[in-house]
Order: sequence, then C-alpha cells, then structure tokens
Amino acid sequence: MAGVRLGELGALLGGELVGDAELTVSRIGPLDSADAQTISFLSNPRYQAQLASSKAGCVIVGPAMREAAVARGPALVCADPYLAFARLTQWWAARSRRAPVVGVHPSAVVEEGARIHATASIGALAFVAAGAEVGAGAVIGPQVHIGADAAVGEGTLLKPRVVLSEGCRIGARGIVHSGAVIGADGFGFAPARNEAGAWWEKIEQLGGVRIGDDVEIGANTCIDRGALEDTVLEDGVKLDNLVQIGHNVHVGAHTAFAGCVGVAGSARIGRHCTAGGGAIILGHLEICDHVHITAATVISRSIHKPGQYSGMFPFDDNASWEKNAATLRQLHTLRERLRAMEKALENKT
Amino acid sequence: MAGVRLGELGALLGGELVGDAELTVSRIGPLDSADAQTISFLSNPRYQAQLASSKAGCVIVGPAMREAAVARGPALVCADPYLAFARLTQWWAARSRRAPVVGVHPSAVVEEGARIHATASIGALAFVAAGAEVGAGAVIGPQVHIGADAAVGEGTLLKPRVVLSEGCRIGARGIVHSGAVIGADGFGFAPARNEAGAWWEKIEQLGGVRIGDDVEIGANTCIDRGALEDTVLEDGVKLDNLVQIGHNVHVGAHTAFAGCVGVAGSARIGRHCTAGGGAIILGHLEICDHVHITAATVISRSIHKPGQYSGMFPFDDNASWEKNAATLRQLHTLRERLRAMEKALENKT
Amino acid sequence: MAGVRLGELGALLGGELVGDAELTVSRIGPLDSADAQTISFLSNPRYQAQLASSKAGCVIVGPAMREAAVARGPALVCADPYLAFARLTQWWAARSRRAPVVGVHPSAVVEEGARIHATASIGALAFVAAGAEVGAGAVIGPQVHIGADAAVGEGTLLKPRVVLSEGCRIGARGIVHSGAVIGADGFGFAPARNEAGAWWEKIEQLGGVRIGDDVEIGANTCIDRGALEDTVLEDGVKLDNLVQIGHNVHVGAHTAFAGCVGVAGSARIGRHCTAGGGAIILGHLEICDHVHITAATVISRSIHKPGQYSGMFPFDDNASWEKNAATLRQLHTLRERLRAMEKALENKT
Repeated sequence: MAGVRLGELGALLGGELVGDAELTVSRIGPLDSADAQTISFLSNPRYQAQLASSKAGCVIVGPAMREAAVARGPALVCADPYLAFARLTQWWAARSRRAPVVGVHPSAVVEEGARIHATASIGALAFVAAGAEVGAGAVIGPQVHIGADAAVGEGTLLKPRVVLSEGCRIGARGIVHSGAVIGADGFGFAPARNEAGAWWEKIEQLGGVRIGDDVEIGANTCIDRGALEDTVLEDGVKLDNLVQIGHNVHVGAHTAFAGCVGVAGSARIGRHCTAGGGAIILGHLEICDHVHITAATVISRSIHKPGQYSGMFPFDDNASWEKNAATLRQLHTLRERLRAMEKALENKT
Repeated sequence: MAGVRLGELGALLGGELVGDAELTVSRIGPLDSADAQTISFLSNPRYQAQLASSKAGCVIVGPAMREAAVARGPALVCADPYLAFARLTQWWAARSRRAPVVGVHPSAVVEEGARIHATASIGALAFVAAGAEVGAGAVIGPQVHIGADAAVGEGTLLKPRVVLSEGCRIGARGIVHSGAVIGADGFGFAPARNEAGAWWEKIEQLGGVRIGDDVEIGANTCIDRGALEDTVLEDGVKLDNLVQIGHNVHVGAHTAFAGCVGVAGSARIGRHCTAGGGAIILGHLEICDHVHITAATVISRSIHKPGQYSGMFPFDDNASWEKNAATLRQLHTLRERLRAMEKALENKT
Repeated sequence: MAGVRLGELGALLGGELVGDAELTVSRIGPLDSADAQTISFLSNPRYQAQLASSKAGCVIVGPAMREAAVARGPALVCADPYLAFARLTQWWAARSRRAPVVGVHPSAVVEEGARIHATASIGALAFVAAGAEVGAGAVIGPQVHIGADAAVGEGTLLKPRVVLSEGCRIGARGIVHSGAVIGADGFGFAPARNEAGAWWEKIEQLGGVRIGDDVEIGANTCIDRGALEDTVLEDGVKLDNLVQIGHNVHVGAHTAFAGCVGVAGSARIGRHCTAGGGAIILGHLEICDHVHITAATVISRSIHKPGQYSGMFPFDDNASWEKNAATLRQLHTLRERLRAMEKALENKT
C-alpha cells in the first residue's frame, strides 16, 4: 500500500518521534523480518537483542528502550508501546480494508417485520427473520443467520456464516467470527423411565443469550441459550475459537478465554478473569474477579481468591511418563507405606 | 404471554394441585427470582432453603416437599417434579413458538429427484440434493445442507446451517443444532514413502452415518462417516456442542455426552453411558453399558464394568501445583527410594 | 454397484493375484462382516485370526500372510497391503461418486472481479468475493464462502459451508471439510487501562493463512490468520475435526493432528509430527521434526529431540482416583518426608 509518513504516525499514536518525520513506511512487521519500509515495535524486553540488528524503518519502543532504539535509527517512543502497536494496527486496517456496502444485498432473505437500520449492511445470501433488529452501521456478513426477534447493536460485525438465534441479543461494536453459534439449546434433560426402560426427556430452553458491548467471539464458538433465564456475557468479554459456553453461564466484564475452553452450565465467572487454551470450568460453581486459569486446567470447585490456578499434567518422554503414571495409580498406598515407616522409625528412637 | 390457569397445568402434568385452580401464571422461572406470575419447581433438596422465601405463584414439588411447599402457598405435587418441569417446558415452548411454514421456501435450492414430504418445511437458502428424502413434518432450517441420498425422518428438526452429508440418515423426532456436521470424512490415511520421502495417502471414507430416533446433536458437533461401514448413533443418544465422534464409532442407546467430548475412531460405547465435558475416549476400545465418565477424563483402555471412572488432574494455586508437578515427574524414583528404605529397615530388625 | 473383476483390481493395485481373475466383487468391507461379493484386507497381524474364518471373495495381504491367505481362498498379495487398500478406496470412490457439475450454479453469488477457471465448479448458494481466484478443476461446494482476494488451487475441494476468508490461500489437491473456518482473526489484544478501569484493545490481524498442496482440513476446524505475517501449513499436512490453529503458527510438511487438538499462537511445529486427539501445544514454542504427541497431552515447552511424548492422567474407578488425587496435592510434602527419613536412617548407621 502507499507509504505513510512517520510524522503522521507519530501524531496518530501520540509518541515522541526521534528521526526524520518525512520518512515513510508501507507495512507493519516483526523486528527480525523488517526492512526499511517496515515499522516494527518492541514491547517485550525478551526480544531486545533483535532491536540492534533490525532493519526496520522505524521502531515503536517504550521510554526504557529509548536509548537503545535511537542508537539504531528512527524510533517512536510511546508510554505503552504494545498499546500503541494495537492502535496502529486498527488505523492500518481501517485504512486498507474496503468498506462494506450499505444496504441489503439482493440475494439476502429478509422477512417482513425485520427492522434494519438504513446505515447497516446485509451481505449476500444472509437471512434475517421477522422481528429481528439490526442497528446503525452494523455489518451482517454473507450467509449469516439472524433468528426471529434477535438484536444486533450499533456497529457490530457478524462475519460470514454466523448464527444468532431467535431472541438473542448482542450489543454495540461487537465482532463475531465465522461459524459461531449464539443461542443453540442448552444441554438439559430430565431422566425418565417406565417399564420399557430409561430415556432422557428434553427440557426446552426458554431463555436466551444476552451479550454486552465491545464483545468479540471466535470462530465456531458456541454460546448456549439459558434454560429459563438468559446466558450472559458482560461488556468487553473476549472469546477465542471453539469455546463452549453452557446454558445459564454468566461471564463478567473484560474476561478473556483462549481457544477450546469449555464452561459448563450455570457457572458464574467474575470480571477480568482469563483462562488458557483447553481449560475446563465445571458447572454450578463461582469464580471471583481477577482469577487466571492456566491452559488445560480443570476447575472443579469454586474459587474465591484472585490469583493464578493450575492443574496441567507435566508431559515427559513416553517411557518416563509410563513409569510415573503407573506409580501415580498407587500413590495412596505409597503414602501409607511412608506413614508406616515413620511410625516404625519413631518406635526405634 | 397470556396467563395459564394453575388448574390447566395441574391437569397437564397430572399432579395434585394444592391451591386456587383459577390463579394464573405467565412464566416459568427459578425459585429465587420468581414473582406471583411465575411457576417454579424444586427437585434438588439442596435448594429447599429457597422454597420458603420464594415469591412464586406456584411451586412444583415432590411428595417429600409437600408440607413445606403448602405452608408457603400454592403447590403442584408431582411424583417426579423434575420430569414434570421438563414436560411443562415442552408444553410452554409448543405454545409460545411460531409454527414453521410448511413447504419449500422460494430461495431454497432443491435438486431434481429429492423427495420432500408435503408436510415438511424447507427454510430459506437451504440446499437439498438429488436423491435426498425429507419425512413428514420434518423442519429443515434456513441455510441447511442436505447431501445426495441423505434421509431425514419424521418430525426431525435441523436448525439453521446444519450439514447432513451425502448418504447419511437421521431418524424420527431428532434435533440437530446449528453448525453440526454429520458425515464429514473420517480421519484415515495410510503411511506411504518413496525415495523422495514420506507422506499420507488418503483412505476414502466409503461408509456413512446412521442415526436413530429421538437423537439430539449439539451445535458445531461433528460425526464422521465410517471408513467402510457406518458410524452409528442408536436411539435416544444426546450429544452436546463441539463433540467429536470419529469414524466407525458406535454409540449405544440413551448415552449422553457433554460439551467438547471427543471419541476416537472405532470406539464402541454402550447404552445409558454418560461422559462429562472435555472427556476423551481413545480409539478401538469398548465401554460397556452404564459407564459414567467424569469430565476431562481420558479413557485409554476398555471398560467392562459399569460405574464411575475419573482421571482429572486436581488444580491448585500455581505455586503449589508447580512444586507437585515437578515432584510428579520423579514419582517413580520416589517409589524406589521408599522401597530401598523399607528394605533397610527390615535389615535393622 | 456393478461387480469388478479381481483381475482388474490386481492390475490396478499391482499385486500378485492368487485365484480366479474372473471372480467379481461389489464392495469393500472388513474381514469379519465380509461375504463372497466383498474384497477385504489384512494389514495388522492382530487381526490374523479373522482371516481364516472370513467369507471374503478376496483378501488383500502382505507377503508374510501369503500362505495363510491362499489356504483360505482368493488373495491379492501386495508389498504394502494397507497402502494398496488406500489406493483401492480412492479408485472405488472415483468410480462410484457423481462428478461435480462444471460451472457456476445460478444461485451462487460471484462478485465482479473474481477469477474462476472454466473447469471449476461453484455450488449452489456459494459466495465468491471480488479478487478471489478458483483454479482449474477446483470444486467449491454449496454454501461455501470465499473472501476477497482468496485463492483456491487446482483440483482442491471445499466441502459445503467452508469459509476461506479474505486473502487466504490454499494450494492444489486440497480437501477442506464442512464448517472449517480458514482465516478468522487471531486472538490478539493489548491490555489497556484508564481511571475508569481496564479493558482489552484489539490488535487487528493483518496477516493471512497460507496452505500448501495436498492438505486436508477437518470439519469445523479453525485456522486463524496471522497478526502481521501469515499462519502457514506446509504441503501434505492433515488436520482432523475441531482442531484449533492459532495465529502465526507454522506446521511443517506431512504433520498430522487428530481431532480436538489445539495449537496456541506462534508455535512452530516440525515436519512428519503427529498429535493424538485433544493434545494441546502451548504458544511460542518449537517442536522439531518427527515428534509424536500422545492424545490429551499438554506440550508446555519446546521439544528438540524426535520421539514419543506423553502426559495423560491415568483414569481409574472414581474411588481410587479420589484417594490418589487427594494425595497428589501433597506430593511435594511426601517427598520432603521421605528425604527426612532417609537422613534419619543415615544418622542411625
């Protein structure tokens, strides 16, 4: 794309530019593969070694790195270089991506009684059911499904092939990625039996899903509707791909879950929590604010104290693992043998 | 919605109504948030404390709770209150949801040679291939895909954007949620190599998927077609979201799997089994009837005895976990040291 | 389907046919359920017992099994019977499946500026955006989404309802199964705060996804686009269903991942690696060529030595597991007690 003057970027990001404001860059890239047309950044000191040798046309750094960066060449010194980088990517994307076409694509199917704001965009082959509402500037991608009486807030973006089921609501400035399903039935059944045998009787899920503002939901992630009341995601929640949120779950504001996290029904998660990839949170428990769960950890009871919690089985070469795993299955007896010996020793003294 | 007389609900659910049959309720809700227009229920004694203070217009309870409930106000006493609640939700949903439009939506694409029953509904932008069969009263949601020679039984509901691949069959009264993929290729490859190196040679999956009656399948769940014969789900199976069923798997009747469960190829699961969220069942093994697998447990060998099986790594605060995990990797040597000491002690006595 | 002469199959697979070349078979099946019209195979000696009793019209075996097979009846002796079986399934599928219709289905939406090869097939209700390129003989299934400037190589097959996002590329002879999402945004946010509190600031994902030739991607699998550069899958990679590949990940040629595997951002995986179902690979680490990861294992640091690595918690009946899990949380103290006793014993001697 066309080059951008460093002076313009300095003004945009509000940092101190050290170097020629007339120089231009035409891409953003990592330090190691950068060239003179690349603006790069250094936020993690771990990568400082890459700074000196980088061929970047400009590097965004924090005050602590000012000297090292300036010694190398043009630098943009920002209070928080990682945040400045995030803002730069946003500006860059807005500048380079084509704007969505306002209005309803002729191939889309919009049922009577759907209310679509004049500034919204409805993509090709999308479906919008009766009673649904699409807000100002919202962008509904091709092949998206919006169910009856569902609502999409101002400026929210539903990528191609999202499903927002009947009666479910998402607020403003949200992003939902392709394949996500919002509002499938929660997994609820009552055990039943008669002389012929036992079966599962369906509990119809009469609640919905209520999602706040500034929420991002990953590809093929599922958020089930509540059994009687709504499943809730508060403002600023961020979910990665292939995440499962069971019915009646409540996720507090600004909580973020990485890929493949599963949250069972009726769990109540606090604000500003995080969970690493593949973590599982069992149902009907409470997690307070500011709890951080390590990847692949299973949370099997409530947590009332902020902090980091872990439960990953340490991997090993297969032979060592097999020996340890075999012993693990007898851990309890090991403990008893130990106690027995402690007793025996005491008797000796 | 319009109120319902308690007398009508009593007759519907076949319980004993204690209170004024002319009173009405207009929603179903939990005990704690109930108001005078709410009918609620108590099945788990754990929540009995909520009963006395509940403002519910009526509470469904079992015989054991009769006295406590009646002391509070109107009650509907049923032999199995949870089952009665399930039936109530079904009646409620049938009453409040709009009926699907019978016939083929003009925007749907139905290939020549597809047989669609006159009472079936084919939604907007759905695709039905040649040779496919859709039974009486079946509801095919918008944007659904039904492949060649596939079959959908009477009264089965495919939610928006389901894929039922070529030659796959689902029985009567089933529910498949959005994004589910039935009949993708199983994961089968033969290792091949020549002087140039090694690669994976595809084994075409020539089987299909055969699903019984009264089966429910969750959002974005995948059920692979068999390699040579069919992958089978028997009657009454219930699968939650994001479940993976590998090729040639056989799941017995009325078995239920929670979200994110994965079953590897050719596993044979019995009837009336359950698996908690994130459990994994390895391939080519057998699990007998009435086996219950705890969440996040990995089943690595066959199980021939009914019961509960578990294998969750207990989580802990990060510091404690790190110490224990480090020790775990030396568990085998610990055991040997213990044995050595036992010997040493013996020699002393 | 119509019968096939054993002589024809012998010529096709290049093995030695022992038996009447004029005999015909009309299906491929496993040894135990085979009849006279079935051609079966034996590659795993574990199933040799089934050979003698099999009613198969012909059995594909390796040289070692020649005698046993011939004693039973017609046999096709191939150097690598499993590979021969794979080739047979490919020939069988090509013979029995209907050919896709070349050209663009009238219900598909193809934006101006998309380049579609004259021999390609674009299915019903598919969407192809401006600037996208579809190669010779490529088959784009019904309801597929191809974003702006994306590219599909020669002979590649996108099954119904795949999403290939803007600017993402897949090479030749690939297969992508239904529901897969290629090119959703990677999960990238910068922490931000002001006097009002903390939130996550989006890092726009400016990279794409670059996929080589002969790659197969499973149903509902997600491959995120890179933050600045591309996420890369080299030639011959095979991914099963519900796999998550984070942004900036690099997967080496001919590596295969089973269902529900998750790979966090910026991990670099070597060539000819495998991971069993549900394995998790954390971010920013390196795994060398020829590493094999057991199912449900969490890889938490780099691996520089080829081999098998495992970390599965061994399951047990619930009661035994509970006792061992409780002890596990005190493993570190057990170790200290053991050390203390060893000291005590030394002092005694």
